[in-house]
Amino acid sequence: MSSVTSTVNRQFVLASRPTGLPEESNFKLIETPIPELKDGEFLARAMYLSVDPYMRGRISQAKSYAAGVEIGGVMVAGGVARVVDSKNPNFAVGDIVDPYMGWQEYVVSNGRGVRKLDPSVAPVSTALGVLGATGLTAYFGLLDVCNPKPGETVVVSGAAGAVGSIVGQIAKIKGCRSVGIAGGDDKIEWILKDCGYDAAFNYKTTADYGAKLKELCPKGIDVYFDNVGGTITDAVFMQINTFARMSICGQISQYNNAKPEMGPRLLGMLIVARAKAQGFLITDYMPRFGEALAEMSGWLREGKIKYCEDIVEGFENLPKAFIGLFHGENIGKRIVKVLD
Amino acid sequence: MSSVTSTVNRQFVLASRPTGLPEESNFKLIETPIPELKDGEFLARAMYLSVDPYMRGRISQAKSYAAGVEIGGVMVAGGVARVVDSKNPNFAVGDIVDPYMGWQEYVVSNGRGVRKLDPSVAPVSTALGVLGATGLTAYFGLLDVCNPKPGETVVVSGAAGAVGSIVGQIAKIKGCRSVGIAGGDDKIEWILKDCGYDAAFNYKTTADYGAKLKELCPKGIDVYFDNVGGTITDAVFMQINTFARMSICGQISQYNNAKPEMGPRLLGMLIVARAKAQGFLITDYMPRFGEALAEMSGWLREGKIKYCEDIVEGFENLPKAFIGLFHGENIGKRIVKVLD
Repeated sequence: MSSVTSTVNRQFVLASRPTGLPEESNFKLIETPIPELKDGEFLARAMYLSVDPYMRGRISQAKSYAAGVEIGGVMVAGGVARVVDSKNPNFAVGDIVDPYMGWQEYVVSNGRGVRKLDPSVAPVSTALGVLGATGLTAYFGLLDVCNPKPGETVVVSGAAGAVGSIVGQIAKIKGCRSVGIAGGDDKIEWILKDCGYDAAFNYKTTADYGAKLKELCPKGIDVYFDNVGGTITDAVFMQINTFARMSICGQISQYNNAKPEMGPRLLGMLIVARAKAQGFLITDYMPRFGEALAEMSGWLREGKIKYCEDIVEGFENLPKAFIGLFHGENIGKRIVKVLD
Repeated sequence: MSSVTSTVNRQFVLASRPTGLPEESNFKLIETPIPELKDGEFLARAMYLSVDPYMRGRISQAKSYAAGVEIGGVMVAGGVARVVDSKNPNFAVGDIVDPYMGWQEYVVSNGRGVRKLDPSVAPVSTALGVLGATGLTAYFGLLDVCNPKPGETVVVSGAAGAVGSIVGQIAKIKGCRSVGIAGGDDKIEWILKDCGYDAAFNYKTTADYGAKLKELCPKGIDVYFDNVGGTITDAVFMQINTFARMSICGQISQYNNAKPEMGPRLLGMLIVARAKAQGFLITDYMPRFGEALAEMSGWLREGKIKYCEDIVEGFENLPKAFIGLFHGENIGKRIVKVLD
């Protein structure tokens, strides 16, 4: 049974490694034949593909937590796709699935680690955001790494991003005061109005982050969820409370530096506050995804969590959509819509 | 009952706050009368007084984990002292005790939190070192913060210091490979020969810390016990393994900076390695001191742990002995002997 209409697979491959900010010329659109299915496999066609800041690390030469993309290799990415042909009894044509498929129109999968999505729970695009990697990142990075307690102050950088916008809402659910930092008045308005942040500031129009944090966090900072690094994180470090927990989730301000940026040495503050800074990776929590998605789906249904998708139309716009992340273009989760 | 022979108490008070490296003129030797004892108190005379790097934080204006010493206040320090007069039924003249007494010859105490020392277990001076704050710092900072597992590689900076020299030995007891970093060939020789370090290097004569660490840690770095900070710590950060644990115990290379030194931003490495950096303070472990001292005393008795005391003679040399810590003068625990 097959509903494939094309024999050609369009793919974005890595043409060259960026130095500094990625450019569209670092990626190349190629066409390859769609492979024949073997027994146990299915073919799925992309509906939505993801662009995320972490991908910058995968196309860099520097050591990272996962193997990088080789020159000529298909760019990595999560996707939401519809099964269009199947030799796997567990996946039928028409099923909507979430393969880690890369920037391409078609993917062949043996189904391992692939979820079937239920459109009645939430729009399937949420499998790339609030009910996918970024939502789970917010969930485990806040709850597991930082263990926030009612009444504590949680500061979030990149607070209007795919992860940060969810972190603040989970912090509220847990009875914390949430304070967001983002770059843009529209973003600040959104996280205050829709994401339940108690306070927030636009770092682009704030001269003294330290003074602003003092004003917005009168009881100091117990938990910091860091998506950006750099001078914002410097300011937070100086105001952490005793036994503060800092979840180092992302450092988007640093990803395009050819060599490490210099900043004030801050490890001494960890001693002063007996605090911890901890990096984490969402894939390490895979055995617990089920419990987290159940809880997140519940919160979504009850209206305790809102989300925003920043949809870019068109497969050919993937590189541009990705590069825009580093200009702070997106509010919420940026997703590229490939197919209606 | 009293064996007091003097009515005068010599004390070192803080005369001025240092900018940068402390100088002897920051301290002033004064004489005050020994106070009268009230019921429940005892008077003890210092035998040994401690000098430790952490004291630099207590005489600085910057925020720290404990209230600082005021100008004119007695310099803080742990001591080992002999009871010379007592109105406390639990402490008799002749008892040897470990009050947190400061840089002074006599102290009046109500006995709260004060241990009686048993000279048959170990020389009483060890209550300031291997069986005191620095030994306990090594114990909890390594075992509790980092949870080292057999076969892991543990790197220690300040490895010939009071804390670092013990950390390497506990790491060996736990079946780890221990790699020490210290400043001086005599120190390297000592930690390799007496402290059981598997490998070590003198950072003062090593041009490329990174290359040296690669050579000495062929399986990467699982645990880092940091006493120094700065460029040594930068090099370690670049070579940590997945799920590395870093105990931030001290930053002696930074304590005398008037403002934070600049260095490469390294938090991104925590994400790459899913690692944590955690500050801690030994006083937070007070409820568990008993168990730790029992275990440490056992290791000492069995010869599994050796220690070295760097004894400076004479009460009047306290400031000089303290300042020398920042020149790396000491091997092992530096202690000032006040009384024969």
